[in-house]
Amino acid sequence: MTTLIWYGDEAVSHWAADDRGIAYGDGLFETLRVEAGRGVLLAGHLQRLQQGCLQLGIPFLASWPQRIADALASGKTGILRVQVTRGRGARGYQSPSVITPGFALSWHERPQYPAQYTQWGIRVADAPFALASQPALAGIKHSNRLEQVLLRDALATQPQCQELVVCNQAGEVVEGVISNLFMIRAGVLLTPPVTQCGVAGVLREALLADAPLPVEVATLTPSDLLAADEVFFANSVMGIWPVATYRERAWPVGEYTRQCQAHIAPWFAPE
Amino acid sequence: MTTLIWYGDEAVSHWAADDRGIAYGDGLFETLRVEAGRGVLLAGHLQRLQQGCLQLGIPFLASWPQRIADALASGKTGILRVQVTRGRGARGYQSPSVITPGFALSWHERPQYPAQYTQWGIRVADAPFALASQPALAGIKHSNRLEQVLLRDALATQPQCQELVVCNQAGEVVEGVISNLFMIRAGVLLTPPVTQCGVAGVLREALLADAPLPVEVATLTPSDLLAADEVFFANSVMGIWPVATYRERAWPVGEYTRQCQAHIAPWFAPE
Repeated sequence: MTTLIWYGDEAVSHWAADDRGIAYGDGLFETLRVEAGRGVLLAGHLQRLQQGCLQLGIPFLASWPQRIADALASGKTGILRVQVTRGRGARGYQSPSVITPGFALSWHERPQYPAQYTQWGIRVADAPFALASQPALAGIKHSNRLEQVLLRDALATQPQCQELVVCNQAGEVVEGVISNLFMIRAGVLLTPPVTQCGVAGVLREALLADAPLPVEVATLTPSDLLAADEVFFANSVMGIWPVATYRERAWPVGEYTRQCQAHIAPWFAPE
Repeated sequence: MTTLIWYGDEAVSHWAADDRGIAYGDGLFETLRVEAGRGVLLAGHLQRLQQGCLQLGIPFLASWPQRIADALASGKTGILRVQVTRGRGARGYQSPSVITPGFALSWHERPQYPAQYTQWGIRVADAPFALASQPALAGIKHSNRLEQVLLRDALATQPQCQELVVCNQAGEVVEGVISNLFMIRAGVLLTPPVTQCGVAGVLREALLADAPLPVEVATLTPSDLLAADEVFFANSVMGIWPVATYRERAWPVGEYTRQCQAHIAPWFAPE
């Protein structure tokens, strides 16, 4: 798991001790699925990273897309993790007057999810706590992820479940722990807004722009899920996992979910 | 600014590239004012760090208090920053099955705040956004600090102001950007709860346990502040800063604030 790290355009051998990523989680990341050198939904990942930099006031360096392209040119298959930080700083929350951002690339094994998750669906449970609402940070893939760490560890205590239904404090559904949530009602694909909390997943954005059925962003509750024709979780690493059971409800994998899986399959294929 | 870093009890020369502090802000920190080798309110800092570790599921190592004591034995004056992380991990939110926490100590200059802040008070403004409520993370000094980074940078755009009144999304006052908030009403010292958001400051805890006047945790609004007899911000690095102006209201430094300043002065003195 070699990690290549740069500050600005200077390659370095390790993170600086005073990097603000360590101190404050002051950064952003992307997790890119790579198929034989092709980054799945790469443009969407770069766009979200750029948007996150804009929102946090971290410069997005023109050299970064090229560094990612150079890494992809190896032709590898796996996961390329991209980490950005605000770089080094003096003690204290205030951003340095000159920001030289940190940037790192590391290769990881593709997670070996059982094929049945995609084929026959997963079991999901309710998250043990709700996400905090913070419009100033919603949507972007920032590195303040303690909520997700705690939720992921809670999920690990229920080995029969593969995802959690995570709500906001108003009791509305937001997403899963590692993926976005979708449901189908009367032939329409629905997914909750991520303007108060949650991550604007790259596969979510791609489906909002191009799905095989009408798609809408809608406020949804657990009751809506239970009444849905079909429910699935999706992200750009795992693709689409149909929900087989949630609370007292069980679903066979539905026709629209299969259509969505077929629709995104070319996005995940090697060139 | 040398930083000493350990993983478990092994000293290392730098943070590991796969440290979860960088990836997720998965850690905690303490900022200890040191006077000629004496850590101001050291027991309170250690207690909060231990509580934070408990809450996040990071082991609190028995060697850490001794490492801090060793650093203090140098007799220095300044700021000793303590950083804890969950240590190294594979990609993904889930905590490793065996956690070897990261621990770092770094010395920093004492911030050179003008003496007038303590003597005559500061000007404060309203924060541009509200804190998110998250009981699972409230109180502890975790390293997910993007809200504070954005607020501190917003404060820097108003150089005439030294702190911000930061509210929760219900419009109740929580704290400042770098300090806790107190007000005096009818001879009682009041400070907001930090059970939904905010940091349980070490000086705040010390004053709750031992103040020169009756003290209560109370839900407070900006209107309460404007109607208060006296208002001040406090933390264990800067001490107590009276509020001189907030919105249309101005205050002389009040008698109770002076009593509190005198009361805590021995806590900040060298041995």
